Amino acid sequence: MAHDISETIEDRIQALRPGRGETGEPAGSLKAGSAVDRFARVRGRTVALAAPLSDADATVQSMPDASPAKWHLAHTSWFFEAFVIAPERGEAARFDADYAFLFNSYYDAVGDRHARPHRGMLTRPTLEAVFDYRRHVDRHMHALLSDGNARALAMLELGLAHEEQHQELFLTDILHLFAQNPLKPVYAADAPQPQPVAGEAQWVAFEGGLAAIGSDPDGFHYDCEGPVHEARLYPFELASRVVTNREWLEFIADGGYARPAFWMSDGFAQCQAEGWQAPLYWFSTPDGWHTMTLRGAQPVDPDAPVCHVSHYEADAFARWAGGRLPTEQEWEHAARTAKPGALHGLYTDVWEWTSSAFAAYPGYCPPDGAIGEYNGKFMSGTMVLRGASCATAEGHARPGYRNFFHPAKRWQFTGLRLARDTR
Amino acid sequence: MAHDISETIEDRIQALRPGRGETGEPAGSLKAGSAVDRFARVRGRTVALAAPLSDADATVQSMPDASPAKWHLAHTSWFFEAFVIAPERGEAARFDADYAFLFNSYYDAVGDRHARPHRGMLTRPTLEAVFDYRRHVDRHMHALLSDGNARALAMLELGLAHEEQHQELFLTDILHLFAQNPLKPVYAADAPQPQPVAGEAQWVAFEGGLAAIGSDPDGFHYDCEGPVHEARLYPFELASRVVTNREWLEFIADGGYARPAFWMSDGFAQCQAEGWQAPLYWFSTPDGWHTMTLRGAQPVDPDAPVCHVSHYEADAFARWAGGRLPTEQEWEHAARTAKPGALHGLYTDVWEWTSSAFAAYPGYCPPDGAIGEYNGKFMSGTMVLRGASCATAEGHARPGYRNFFHPAKRWQFTGLRLARDTR
Amino acid sequence: MAHDISETIEDRIQALRPGRGETGEPAGSLKAGSAVDRFARVRGRTVALAAPLSDADATVQSMPDASPAKWHLAHTSWFFEAFVIAPERGEAARFDADYAFLFNSYYDAVGDRHARPHRGMLTRPTLEAVFDYRRHVDRHMHALLSDGNARALAMLELGLAHEEQHQELFLTDILHLFAQNPLKPVYAADAPQPQPVAGEAQWVAFEGGLAAIGSDPDGFHYDCEGPVHEARLYPFELASRVVTNREWLEFIADGGYARPAFWMSDGFAQCQAEGWQAPLYWFSTPDGWHTMTLRGAQPVDPDAPVCHVSHYEADAFARWAGGRLPTEQEWEHAARTAKPGALHGLYTDVWEWTSSAFAAYPGYCPPDGAIGEYNGKFMSGTMVLRGASCATAEGHARPGYRNFFHPAKRWQFTGLRLARDTR
Amino acid sequence: MAHDISETIEDRIQALRPGRGETGEPAGSLKAGSAVDRFARVRGRTVALAAPLSDADATVQSMPDASPAKWHLAHTSWFFEAFVIAPERGEAARFDADYAFLFNSYYDAVGDRHARPHRGMLTRPTLEAVFDYRRHVDRHMHALLSDGNARALAMLELGLAHEEQHQELFLTDILHLFAQNPLKPVYAADAPQPQPVAGEAQWVAFEGGLAAIGSDPDGFHYDCEGPVHEARLYPFELASRVVTNREWLEFIADGGYARPAFWMSDGFAQCQAEGWQAPLYWFSTPDGWHTMTLRGAQPVDPDAPVCHVSHYEADAFARWAGGRLPTEQEWEHAARTAKPGALHGLYTDVWEWTSSAFAAYPGYCPPDGAIGEYNGKFMSGTMVLRGASCATAEGHARPGYRNFFHPAKRWQFTGLRLARDTR
Repeated sequence: MAHDISETIEDRIQALRPGRGETGEPAGSLKAGSAVDRFARVRGRTVALAAPLSDADATVQSMPDASPAKWHLAHTSWFFEAFVIAPERGEAARFDADYAFLFNSYYDAVGDRHARPHRGMLTRPTLEAVFDYRRHVDRHMHALLSDGNARALAMLELGLAHEEQHQELFLTDILHLFAQNPLKPVYAADAPQPQPVAGEAQWVAFEGGLAAIGSDPDGFHYDCEGPVHEARLYPFELASRVVTNREWLEFIADGGYARPAFWMSDGFAQCQAEGWQAPLYWFSTPDGWHTMTLRGAQPVDPDAPVCHVSHYEADAFARWAGGRLPTEQEWEHAARTAKPGALHGLYTDVWEWTSSAFAAYPGYCPPDGAIGEYNGKFMSGTMVLRGASCATAEGHARPGYRNFFHPAKRWQFTGLRLARDTR
Repeated sequence: MAHDISETIEDRIQALRPGRGETGEPAGSLKAGSAVDRFARVRGRTVALAAPLSDADATVQSMPDASPAKWHLAHTSWFFEAFVIAPERGEAARFDADYAFLFNSYYDAVGDRHARPHRGMLTRPTLEAVFDYRRHVDRHMHALLSDGNARALAMLELGLAHEEQHQELFLTDILHLFAQNPLKPVYAADAPQPQPVAGEAQWVAFEGGLAAIGSDPDGFHYDCEGPVHEARLYPFELASRVVTNREWLEFIADGGYARPAFWMSDGFAQCQAEGWQAPLYWFSTPDGWHTMTLRGAQPVDPDAPVCHVSHYEADAFARWAGGRLPTEQEWEHAARTAKPGALHGLYTDVWEWTSSAFAAYPGYCPPDGAIGEYNGKFMSGTMVLRGASCATAEGHARPGYRNFFHPAKRWQFTGLRLARDTR
Repeated sequence: MAHDISETIEDRIQALRPGRGETGEPAGSLKAGSAVDRFARVRGRTVALAAPLSDADATVQSMPDASPAKWHLAHTSWFFEAFVIAPERGEAARFDADYAFLFNSYYDAVGDRHARPHRGMLTRPTLEAVFDYRRHVDRHMHALLSDGNARALAMLELGLAHEEQHQELFLTDILHLFAQNPLKPVYAADAPQPQPVAGEAQWVAFEGGLAAIGSDPDGFHYDCEGPVHEARLYPFELASRVVTNREWLEFIADGGYARPAFWMSDGFAQCQAEGWQAPLYWFSTPDGWHTMTLRGAQPVDPDAPVCHVSHYEADAFARWAGGRLPTEQEWEHAARTAKPGALHGLYTDVWEWTSSAFAAYPGYCPPDGAIGEYNGKFMSGTMVLRGASCATAEGHARPGYRNFFHPAKRWQFTGLRLARDTR
Repeated sequence: MAHDISETIEDRIQALRPGRGETGEPAGSLKAGSAVDRFARVRGRTVALAAPLSDADATVQSMPDASPAKWHLAHTSWFFEAFVIAPERGEAARFDADYAFLFNSYYDAVGDRHARPHRGMLTRPTLEAVFDYRRHVDRHMHALLSDGNARALAMLELGLAHEEQHQELFLTDILHLFAQNPLKPVYAADAPQPQPVAGEAQWVAFEGGLAAIGSDPDGFHYDCEGPVHEARLYPFELASRVVTNREWLEFIADGGYARPAFWMSDGFAQCQAEGWQAPLYWFSTPDGWHTMTLRGAQPVDPDAPVCHVSHYEADAFARWAGGRLPTEQEWEHAARTAKPGALHGLYTDVWEWTSSAFAAYPGYCPPDGAIGEYNGKFMSGTMVLRGASCATAEGHARPGYRNFFHPAKRWQFTGLRLARDTR
């Protein structure tokens, strides 16, 4: 199961496609001038993320779920080469014919099914060669965008959204790699990490009724975020902030990981099979719990949001705490309608697990001719996360954004916010 | 995963508990007179189901998901012994102290985690001894019910519903066992099996709007069937009958099992890993497809409902056919509101996979002091089935009844009915 | 690995074939009169072994390495049917054509590779039907042997040796099955088990030099026991008796199972992976160690030979005790040349692990037209055991007899006798 | 099993220790002058082997059996630091305290059992830092050897033999890594590879009798190579050269990989489980079989020795060819006594599988106070290889040298030479 899921992480990103606005144009198209700037900005951020890495850092794959940094760098470039440059400029404009094979996530589906777990075997091409590849792609795209090339403009938002998703995976995958090293290397002293949140959580109440769910059809969004529809909600309350490490430590101290009564049956089996006793990356020292972060090993900050917990753990915690996880509809409704300031940190620190299995919205219809594959194919076995994390590119998320992972996964920046029925 | 799920099949049956009616009494309580009759009738059916079996037939466990017939026979008796006889008549009234250990499904949770897959090792006690056990329990229950014993009456509906669930598992498990035998033994010449359905399927239309979902709080039902609530539905159509083998053969002939475009990502991985090419129990012969049934091996009847397909297969078929699976709310709404005769075979042949993950209804609150464990613990990783099958005890099901299995499982009597959005 | 080994247990028995005497006749041929008697005696013992079993006892397979009792009963009959009755009397003389398929160990090689682990699925034919099968075969064989039929006489010793091997497996497999049952059933109050041995072990010295190794070519033996050849031995000593439970308890008390220094690298990995802390079937109680036996659960008798230990454990014990396991050549030389009474229990209680991997003797040449397969195919991955056990049929073993099992296996009646270099 | 074996590769190298000469001095001690030279030469070769590698090449671990090049470079330095420099110069003389933890193979035994498969996670320290480490160790060793330091001199031969073993593993592991890369990178245009052999193989005859086996006690050797002893051999013939690819192609063409009759039972199971159809690294192209080598992908040269075959394959080939593998005693006897020129390529191209399980020689006694662990712990589950390969350091091997690997392993430079009984 883990393997299968891992095989799909890239496919599913690939598969995401924009919905269409009222005009029939892909939502979120840009004009040439701002397009050049925006392209350079997003692409530049990816390169900046790679600055702290050695050739070896960028090559190793620490688990089948993760991809090497070099692969993220190359694959996001392949995307523009495959869907814009090659169609517009011809196959000869490709940097290297082999790269289409090496960095095309579809290769897995077509050929050797073991390809994904073997990404870490690619010590060649080197990191430097991959940067050359990026520059090659950037030059072509710059020219096409400057010329107002229609295809380049049409694909821009999707390609950059795709790249931003890989930026987050880049960081989660590097953290996982560095966490395997007993030397606990520092990725960057100012790397993203969840920030402390102040004070006790408050319950924020929401009325029930019919709530509008789904992303604005005129803005850029993925197909699974629509169509806009109504959902029948019942009165509920949502915590004003996410759960903190302090609260999680109480869960641990109260035997949370050892008491099956709090857990889903599948979840407890996983918990026992993998020996979970704390969030991923936590380790016990004579000086108390520490955790591996992109800034290296650090003491667990009790005021920071708990992070790197699976859906199973989040769900068990919520039951222990006398609450529950919100449905994704509750979360979205709250995010759209809460009084300003009532809900803290919706998009800043950790993705928030919901109790909703990832599924099609009413009236969802997989588009013909989608870039990549039918998105609905991942609507089985995964749970929805809402919000965004400290590792998410700025401006990437929105109230209707639907992230999703298998409930056992922990290496993303994932936490939770409690909900409860109104008494 | 398969293992974990398999470990929970009994637990979850055990966990099911009645909701409560307006009066505070367990819904569905009976008066003493009819109680004695009803008890005898249900218990007698279980014994009748065992009549065709040898001691060996009743002992072997053909896979971890299944339980031996002897275990079903003993465990359903243990239920009454543990929750009625021992509390009312004292521990000394137990048939054999060891039986509480051998036939108590909770043993698994408490002690040796390998117990469930080892149920098939219990060549002793013999089948005859287990029948003695049943008679012992029946005598005590008859006396208690005749006396109008409050506990016996209060537990009756739950105990019999529990037994009826085991009656269906008894049949699905025997079929699985006999299917492993190259001799393809006949369980019974008149054993339950899905019956041919006539004619082409018609689309039956339903309005959208707010639909009432959930079982009548005054009738007997399990906790997960409530509370009654509204769900927002959009106009949809449901097929007048379930999918047939004829239609499934077209799916096979069209490469349905080999074309990933139709499948959930997890589903296709499972399909390939297990080499699925047809429903479970089908096998190819020079005379065409045959299938193992409780009546022995038979040619596949093109007019009969397709049976023994997983959720993954059902979902892929629906996509291939240009439709989709209904949500469980759509199914329930249709079952409650369709014109008489419009929908055929809702409760007669095969359980119908829905597109809904098994999850808590709004306002669902696990009851304190439940018999067994919290039912919500299985609300992860399973999909809802609606209706009933040819192997379901008469009168067992109802419109709000929620069955659920892991989407990869195929040994239950499971099929599907198509839905689609109204054009 | 375990699986592969398990798949071969029957094949390898099947594969064993007699060497040939000087006359060109199969060694050990009998004349008609004594043949009828001997056939009846050996066949009768098999039936007697089955007397304590129920239909279910005889059907269940407790692990892939083991076979159901019913299978042993049928397969040993199939052997005579396939190699004598069908060739002499025609296919029509077979009891049931399906049985050749069900009880022919070669079926595994030819067809479904999962057949062996699925032997326990055969609840039909019943035990009673299998006894009918045996009687059918016995009638035919009695007639053929009485008539002095050449093929029947030629195959007799091999067929009976084959049956005797299955008699031992019958017992080891039933013990394994009953050991899985928490009720710890008694197979028979007077069933075979290792008997207490008196006194301290003495070292018995043997000269080195060239020793004759290999079974007498004129007596019945398996091909792997020849040809007779010389081996160069160095002076060594062998313990006068096998290791006892008392000595093994000291090994346990001294941390024997937890100290890698005593163990082969592979062995310690296995020990840890399976959590070995004592011989198979031992379990700790408030009253000390007990062990499951064919006579039910019993306190461990300190004076009895240790039994149900793997080669890995035996080897670790020997190193802990400051000795070593003997080579198979040392064992055979000692068995052939020791003064009467010097070595106790060579053939009475437990098979004795040697330090020799099972391999071809110099000049060994797999015979053409062998019954079954080439015996040498098991000369990889197994270790030689010498002697015989309490479960071995009387007269079955001899000084040159070579038994062999994978070094991790423990469910046979296996123990050890220490050796050491002469100081 | 594969995993366990993989965990022991380094341990077992570490465990190897020199026998002792008549004088009580470690065999093969050197005087200071030549010691400095020899140390520089062997150490320099290791560095030269790393010259073609990037930081990433040197970091990635392609399978649990293999180690990263960086690890080989560091670990061989750690050996001298741990056993000479730290004892002589104090702990402060260590390059970095963490390195003892990272590059000490014993760490696995002591602590985290997953350490070995995680060697490839060590992107830090960088390759450059590891070269610094080597220079640090070389400076200290140069000084100690120049001073005639007794410990340094005493450990020299063992440390260099250890390093030479790692040189060979370095090459086999890099080949395995590069073979995973679809780009099939070239390690070096003049890298070692088996060279074509001329003409038909001839049978070279050897008399039987008592042969002296075991390495010269006065020369450097590992403990398992002694004591010298006699083995009783029977007349046999050995092929004048190893088996070639041409011969192997005939085996393939004749269905060698699909016909169980040629195979050990364990071997055929492995063959089928892993889908072997040719030696490791071979791949089929429209232009015929090619193979990955240290010089990149190349057509299979029919005249070159077959290489990268497991013991199982070698054994099956020998049976197919009407011969057998030699015992290790036959091989050693032949290597010691053959007429000059009669046997070609004993130490030049491929290690030669024998039919002998790795086991203790008569009188073998594990030395107290050995460097590392008791060597006998690997005398289970492995088969002996004799000779040397193109990747073996010059002068490393000798007639009595015993290499050993699990019979399923194929990534070493392993081939075979046929033997047969004298007719």
